[in-house]
Amino acid sequence: MAAPKSGLGDMADVKEAIKNQGEIVRKLKQEKADPEKISEEVQKLLSLKEQLGDARPQKFQLKTPKGTRDYNPRQMAIREGVFKTIINCFKRHGAETIDTPVFELKETLTGKYGEDAKLIYDLADQGGEILSLRYDLTVPFARYLAMNKINTIKRYHIAKVYRRDNPAMTRGRYREFYQCDFDIAGQYDLMIPDAECVKIVAEILSELNVGDFIIKLNTRLLLDGMFAVCGVPEDKFRTICSAVDKLDKTFWEDVRSEMVDEKGLAPEVADRIGEYVRLNGQLELVDQLMQDEQMMKNKMARQGLEEMKLLLTYCQLFGVLDKVSFDLSLARGLDYYTGVIYEAILTTEKVQSDGGDKNEPVGVGSVAGGGRYDGLVGMFDPKGKKVPCVGVSIGIERLFSIMEAKAEAAEGKVRTTETQVYVASGQKNMLEERMKLCNLLWEGGIKTELSYKKNPKLLNQFQYAEEHGIPFLAIIGEQELKDGVVKVRNTSTREEETFPRDKLLEEIRTRVGPS
Amino acid sequence: MAAPKSGLGDMADVKEAIKNQGEIVRKLKQEKADPEKISEEVQKLLSLKEQLGDARPQKFQLKTPKGTRDYNPRQMAIREGVFKTIINCFKRHGAETIDTPVFELKETLTGKYGEDAKLIYDLADQGGEILSLRYDLTVPFARYLAMNKINTIKRYHIAKVYRRDNPAMTRGRYREFYQCDFDIAGQYDLMIPDAECVKIVAEILSELNVGDFIIKLNTRLLLDGMFAVCGVPEDKFRTICSAVDKLDKTFWEDVRSEMVDEKGLAPEVADRIGEYVRLNGQLELVDQLMQDEQMMKNKMARQGLEEMKLLLTYCQLFGVLDKVSFDLSLARGLDYYTGVIYEAILTTEKVQSDGGDKNEPVGVGSVAGGGRYDGLVGMFDPKGKKVPCVGVSIGIERLFSIMEAKAEAAEGKVRTTETQVYVASGQKNMLEERMKLCNLLWEGGIKTELSYKKNPKLLNQFQYAEEHGIPFLAIIGEQELKDGVVKVRNTSTREEETFPRDKLLEEIRTRVGPS
Repeated sequence: MAAPKSGLGDMADVKEAIKNQGEIVRKLKQEKADPEKISEEVQKLLSLKEQLGDARPQKFQLKTPKGTRDYNPRQMAIREGVFKTIINCFKRHGAETIDTPVFELKETLTGKYGEDAKLIYDLADQGGEILSLRYDLTVPFARYLAMNKINTIKRYHIAKVYRRDNPAMTRGRYREFYQCDFDIAGQYDLMIPDAECVKIVAEILSELNVGDFIIKLNTRLLLDGMFAVCGVPEDKFRTICSAVDKLDKTFWEDVRSEMVDEKGLAPEVADRIGEYVRLNGQLELVDQLMQDEQMMKNKMARQGLEEMKLLLTYCQLFGVLDKVSFDLSLARGLDYYTGVIYEAILTTEKVQSDGGDKNEPVGVGSVAGGGRYDGLVGMFDPKGKKVPCVGVSIGIERLFSIMEAKAEAAEGKVRTTETQVYVASGQKNMLEERMKLCNLLWEGGIKTELSYKKNPKLLNQFQYAEEHGIPFLAIIGEQELKDGVVKVRNTSTREEETFPRDKLLEEIRTRVGPS
Repeated sequence: MAAPKSGLGDMADVKEAIKNQGEIVRKLKQEKADPEKISEEVQKLLSLKEQLGDARPQKFQLKTPKGTRDYNPRQMAIREGVFKTIINCFKRHGAETIDTPVFELKETLTGKYGEDAKLIYDLADQGGEILSLRYDLTVPFARYLAMNKINTIKRYHIAKVYRRDNPAMTRGRYREFYQCDFDIAGQYDLMIPDAECVKIVAEILSELNVGDFIIKLNTRLLLDGMFAVCGVPEDKFRTICSAVDKLDKTFWEDVRSEMVDEKGLAPEVADRIGEYVRLNGQLELVDQLMQDEQMMKNKMARQGLEEMKLLLTYCQLFGVLDKVSFDLSLARGLDYYTGVIYEAILTTEKVQSDGGDKNEPVGVGSVAGGGRYDGLVGMFDPKGKKVPCVGVSIGIERLFSIMEAKAEAAEGKVRTTETQVYVASGQKNMLEERMKLCNLLWEGGIKTELSYKKNPKLLNQFQYAEEHGIPFLAIIGEQELKDGVVKVRNTSTREEETFPRDKLLEEIRTRVGPS
């Protein structure tokens, strides 16, 4: 509905405002600015026009909700390729898959995400249960295990999750996004499933060919031991841990000031932490820290180091030692981790000049993360029965962005259909015959299309096949019908061959290969 | 939190109530009643126990939201098979795919679903945009076309939609459920894309092997023409149309009474409609109606009959005439249809004695529906520009239910993983060697698992392979390592062969086939 018209004096002001706002929109469009920014300014313009009362009010805001996007067929083709690689890897490691609803009872999510709980999308109370959209796939997985009393499973789950976060869509940060989770639940010997999770991340990132990457490793045990050794009071472990977690996004000075000024840590304690968190390496770093008498006196630190040594040994056996870095600065935000933690980052990714959020340091590209969470399932079990779990989550949106940019750069055609044959005719009144031929090919399992026009031009049909990358045309006319043959044209070479109709399927099959 | 304890006298009452309620729950469980019913009664029992103050309150309600379900790995394996059949069919017909967000701006959905709008899930207003979960895939598709100014596309979209309906889960009616939509947008010649939609439904239902089915056909034009001929006032067309739509769920007498008593139609007009809606057939029915002078005088009816004749002719060319029925009682609920309408029903499905909703007649099994909607995209375009569309939606949940029941009945093992080789050893201290061998197989693309125990028993490893249907074991011990060989055991025949380690991949590959 249009707003009530203003007086005449106001009208001039509004017209002036519309002119100015129009300029802003034009300029943004010329500059090819962020589409979301443009859309915002267009909305302002429209609401100004509405004040004027003479503009036809746009019936609908034609947009997807903030922080979400549609996938067009080209993006879907890329997405399907990425999923295929990931699912193949999960299956190669013997995983089954499950699915859970997109929303959960709100109480299922309560108390699992610490400060991030404010980012959860709630459903309106329309009577009945109080529901929220899932924030990740880990908590629903733990709920599933407890509810079905499952003690051992190796499962993957690929699905969308929802976070009311500040979107940065050019960097692949959305409010609706996919997670690809692989988790191993069960009481097993130390570090064996944990090492397989590292292996899986390494395989996926290598196969997707997104450039160099490194998988950072640490353990919560060692972190806590280190905090104790440095003199952090036990009740501050978690809050100091979340300060350390910011080291991948900000400088040590800022983290130190958060510890000292905000969280009341003694400066000398913070400085001791500062010494440790700059360390990273592999087995030699484990050995070095095992020489650290203070550390070795602390039970948690000692156990953490032993676990890390084992994990690195297993990474070596799995052939991925060159992809990992034992990194004392890795902390991970979530409260529920109890052991090993992982984070994979891309090391060659360049921040695009037009897209990057200027507040984030260059080269930060976390694309996978995870860890061991032995207590989460117990939070759901009425008797608190624990099911140890370890898992990783592949952050697929950033990988999509990279793959899309690569496809863009390669300028190669991404086929969005798999059509093998286009049934065509250059003559009039051939629709029924085209339909019959099409049906013959469909029944033979050949992916086939035809023009939905009664009498399409032959050239248009050739063009359609060429534009859509359809490799063959099956052409008929009066003569072909009389002779009981079909002409097969190779779209790229333009060679034509004629086959008896009853040999057509066979001939096409040898040309397109198994489907 | 437990409720405050009641006085002693009340306590006895509560104990009595708990005892009774306990009986109810036990009885339901014995009867294997509807799990939701059981869960409801258990909740009552728990809240009674809470009144008593001595029960440990359950920390979480361990359930999925009403009308939703998890998919376990077995169900996922069946679901994947169904999707594969459907996607193959869509691709065989040259469709691309898109995806849209799970929620839309509320205003995008407003005014599209008539009375059903009350079933839309809204998100809570947490600041920012007002959002709703999608109710179907058609409206988001129309929004996508208008937003991206797309005039021609053939696309499929498989995704979950959300309806706050009364769930009947044993009959496959959920609040969160999949739709598999195939739509053709574009200005084409009459009935050609419309016939392809029929063909697609016929192919999918035949390939899924869910028993006999029939695809009912009608057109809105003919319905409106028929209403006019019978004497229905024009402003009552839509409301009488929705009364006719109930004919698949209820008897003519009830529909007639709705028309006459509720909607104020003259009894003789209703009776005239009653004559028509009992008609169904194929081309001979079109011919019969074309003899009906009253009908042929009405432009809409005449055009509708001509369209139906063309559609049936094309169905014949596509080899699906035996699957279709021109049925004057088919009306479809949604307002936005403007031409052909479809609905596929299973004709051999039996309602299970324990599961069916007693209010629905036996044999009603709508599993696909759709039609032509030439006006919907225009509702989103600022200038009202129309894009003609026709499409079908496969209602997959009921098909899942049937496939699951079939798998259950067959008692065959549904494999939930694709693991080809299980690396095993009967000796101690072989973990590292098992890991190395596992890695060799992974690197060779073989789907491989190993036990996560340090020293698992050989028998347990054999058992694991057998239970999970893993066809081969690769077994090593001291001797095999010394000789540089691996023993390969066929899980089902128990035959063992020994191969040099460097021939292992090759030998395995010839046994498991291409992956």
